[in-house]
Amino acid sequence: MNRVDLNSDLGESFGTYHLGMDAEILSYVTSANVACGFHAGDPIVMERTVHLAGEKGVSIGAHPGYPDLQGFGRRNMQLTPDEARAMVIYQVGALQAFLAAHQLPLQHVKLHGALYNTAAASYDLSLAICKGIRAVAPEAVFLGLSGSQMLVAARDAGLKVAGEVFADRAYHKDGSLVSRKEPGSVLHDPKVVIARTVRMVREGVVESIEGDVVPVEADSICVHGDTPEAVAFVREISEALKSSGIQLLPLGA
Amino acid sequence: MNRVDLNSDLGESFGTYHLGMDAEILSYVTSANVACGFHAGDPIVMERTVHLAGEKGVSIGAHPGYPDLQGFGRRNMQLTPDEARAMVIYQVGALQAFLAAHQLPLQHVKLHGALYNTAAASYDLSLAICKGIRAVAPEAVFLGLSGSQMLVAARDAGLKVAGEVFADRAYHKDGSLVSRKEPGSVLHDPKVVIARTVRMVREGVVESIEGDVVPVEADSICVHGDTPEAVAFVREISEALKSSGIQLLPLGA
Amino acid sequence: MNRVDLNSDLGESFGTYHLGMDAEILSYVTSANVACGFHAGDPIVMERTVHLAGEKGVSIGAHPGYPDLQGFGRRNMQLTPDEARAMVIYQVGALQAFLAAHQLPLQHVKLHGALYNTAAASYDLSLAICKGIRAVAPEAVFLGLSGSQMLVAARDAGLKVAGEVFADRAYHKDGSLVSRKEPGSVLHDPKVVIARTVRMVREGVVESIEGDVVPVEADSICVHGDTPEAVAFVREISEALKSSGIQLLPLGA
Amino acid sequence: MNRVDLNSDLGESFGTYHLGMDAEILSYVTSANVACGFHAGDPIVMERTVHLAGEKGVSIGAHPGYPDLQGFGRRNMQLTPDEARAMVIYQVGALQAFLAAHQLPLQHVKLHGALYNTAAASYDLSLAICKGIRAVAPEAVFLGLSGSQMLVAARDAGLKVAGEVFADRAYHKDGSLVSRKEPGSVLHDPKVVIARTVRMVREGVVESIEGDVVPVEADSICVHGDTPEAVAFVREISEALKSSGIQLLPLGA
Repeated sequence: MNRVDLNSDLGESFGTYHLGMDAEILSYVTSANVACGFHAGDPIVMERTVHLAGEKGVSIGAHPGYPDLQGFGRRNMQLTPDEARAMVIYQVGALQAFLAAHQLPLQHVKLHGALYNTAAASYDLSLAICKGIRAVAPEAVFLGLSGSQMLVAARDAGLKVAGEVFADRAYHKDGSLVSRKEPGSVLHDPKVVIARTVRMVREGVVESIEGDVVPVEADSICVHGDTPEAVAFVREISEALKSSGIQLLPLGA
Repeated sequence: MNRVDLNSDLGESFGTYHLGMDAEILSYVTSANVACGFHAGDPIVMERTVHLAGEKGVSIGAHPGYPDLQGFGRRNMQLTPDEARAMVIYQVGALQAFLAAHQLPLQHVKLHGALYNTAAASYDLSLAICKGIRAVAPEAVFLGLSGSQMLVAARDAGLKVAGEVFADRAYHKDGSLVSRKEPGSVLHDPKVVIARTVRMVREGVVESIEGDVVPVEADSICVHGDTPEAVAFVREISEALKSSGIQLLPLGA
Repeated sequence: MNRVDLNSDLGESFGTYHLGMDAEILSYVTSANVACGFHAGDPIVMERTVHLAGEKGVSIGAHPGYPDLQGFGRRNMQLTPDEARAMVIYQVGALQAFLAAHQLPLQHVKLHGALYNTAAASYDLSLAICKGIRAVAPEAVFLGLSGSQMLVAARDAGLKVAGEVFADRAYHKDGSLVSRKEPGSVLHDPKVVIARTVRMVREGVVESIEGDVVPVEADSICVHGDTPEAVAFVREISEALKSSGIQLLPLGA
Repeated sequence: MNRVDLNSDLGESFGTYHLGMDAEILSYVTSANVACGFHAGDPIVMERTVHLAGEKGVSIGAHPGYPDLQGFGRRNMQLTPDEARAMVIYQVGALQAFLAAHQLPLQHVKLHGALYNTAAASYDLSLAICKGIRAVAPEAVFLGLSGSQMLVAARDAGLKVAGEVFADRAYHKDGSLVSRKEPGSVLHDPKVVIARTVRMVREGVVESIEGDVVPVEADSICVHGDTPEAVAFVREISEALKSSGIQLLPLGA
């Protein structure tokens, strides 16, 4: 492909607690995943984030997670599919209200943290969640891990889908991510990361940790904006993509 | 008038905790105020309540409150108007999502507990909240205390409004409620309560604790469904209204 | 043995939400497991429960759980051993403060719900938790599932331990509980339940679902007090034990 | 006096959210007020903070607040004295457990934020809270606003008390703080602040905003450690006090 979306998690501050360089990262990404108050974010932060992303012309998606602020949604919780579905509906609805107040559309939904990982491996959980999203936001794109059960379920639920890839993560030959607990799971050389990313978008493949070339659905690249270094790297990757003739466009465009 | 709405707070269970005789009270009321997860309710309970009210043909409203489950939203919290506005938008949006999933409309918004009481006396707080509601649910009726600042602000914000009266509460001559801390604030004789209620609806007046006859906006009567006795009394009051030639109709009808 | 403890979970109300027949069940049990505000209970409820149990002369233990009120601590959460340890220390300390205020001792600690089940199968998790308990309540008895990793770890951490059995649950031949998801996991015939219970206490054995006779550490029997029927059955089982010559005594006695 | 305590609020991080330069400020203060998980802090953060303060030899106190993480305990909540008392007992107990695990004593209790301000003006609320503290930590010093109802109530409850002054805040002639909403409430000239502080400690008086010299109980000075500038100023004030011949000593010494 000659186009790709850059997405980043935003609106992760809470009350007096500040997290993330939202204003800075919004200059480089095309899609913003806005936390919805369960694992991060609160109503004031959500409204501010929607306003900020809207001003910068960045497309907005809901980023629902587990109800675990203390664990930042990164600790797995054994929810039933019905519980997960209801929690996602609730969070998506809350964000939709702020979008309505700012006359902005909901572009996408992307699950957060441990909910993302668990859904990636569970068709049943994903299907329940995606049916819920379909019922409340039928036009939203479901953004999920390339090659995962999430995307299969989202398609079955009748949602538009987009595959997400990670610029700096190693992949197995079945297309799954190498666990962060394993050596070599995170790539650190910027040149390698950029070259891989361009290849994922251009050719739709990535070299796995086992050495095989595996297909990926690189509709969107996940980038981080928590430190000045991270923001600088997003700028770099963004420029590398553009100079390779790849357009940066939001999912819905 | 020859019509009135009967409203009751529903969906106040939380997780394993059960509260309220929702299924029973839904046979008698015309509008259900559904808790939105801040002072009571959770996503599973909200969905169940929306489903149940929808099945019974009862019109549904959002019932946002303070973020205080332990205090059931009954302890005042010193929020800024902006904080209150954002919290109400969030809660209304969450309920709207469950309504969308069940293809049901949002009829109204009614504030809960201490937020209701504080807003009743504060034009500024009410205006901020009502502007928020206007931005996310422009068609919703704002249901608030008859004669209060809430209704003034709701009208100024461009919302449709409905006045709420309490069947069993004493009123001052300025139309405000006698505080529950004062003697005589709650009426206990069912005959007196019913006669007052019929008069409030029919004639738009109530006899105050000081003896004056004062005007009230009796668009809706607040009733409770927490005990079998309460439900039986709602049945009684409902029959008394109907046999007085008063139609029971939801706010939006 | 000719003695046993009867324990029950208490203080599970929260704010306006009422749960459990605490006053009634306290007439029959010898040990109360008091919820500590994470999965159930709140400071007001904890103080009331400590006061009530103290008045009835029932020995008191802390009943820490996962920080998940909505799931009542019954949904597993992937905590690290360090997180679990710190959360247990926090909850035990909170209860100790109410006990100090009422000049009552902490008799025991029993984990709740999914934390109980996960710890039962994990020596490492249990060891971290038990070392935490040892550091804050060295005299407390650790009450845990008979034959489980919890008890092994508690002994290794230097705690006094007591084994818990379930009157109405089926056991596998390795001494583990039959999952509630399997048929036959819960016994319903009161006579069978009582006969099994007496045998567990007297002979220290139970007949497994596979038909083998397996040893159990029946220091304490877990009973429930959520319904009038449950309370009546606790009375029945208590009388059966006594008429079999078994003394009902708290763990610490 | 020729001695004073320097106290600062610590342990205000929560989960993934970082707040405060705890390690740095601990080099200058003599007492640390540790958040207890209601308005800030969590079990992991509490344990880390206790460990850190212990290592640096800084005396430790509990810093209980309203159950309002989103508002950081700075929004007033209308609790009954009984509710406030139970919440303070709970939080003090939780901290005591971490202190016990690290074999460190509880030096003091200082209320946080809006609870501090409300208690400062309410003898009844303060008395209920102080009786609760007396019951769980009879040896703890109650650190409260100089000249306020808090200190009167704490003495009546039988607690040791210490008066707190604010280096950079203006005082009224009745000894109360000038509200932050009024002009001139916060002093910005470091020289003025330092001179006032030395005088408060040495002479026990401060010049009020009205121009009168009013007595203060300057047992402890509240300082902040949220920014590098704040920490640098604490260092400066600490050196100014010492070079004026004033010893910096914790409350309990």
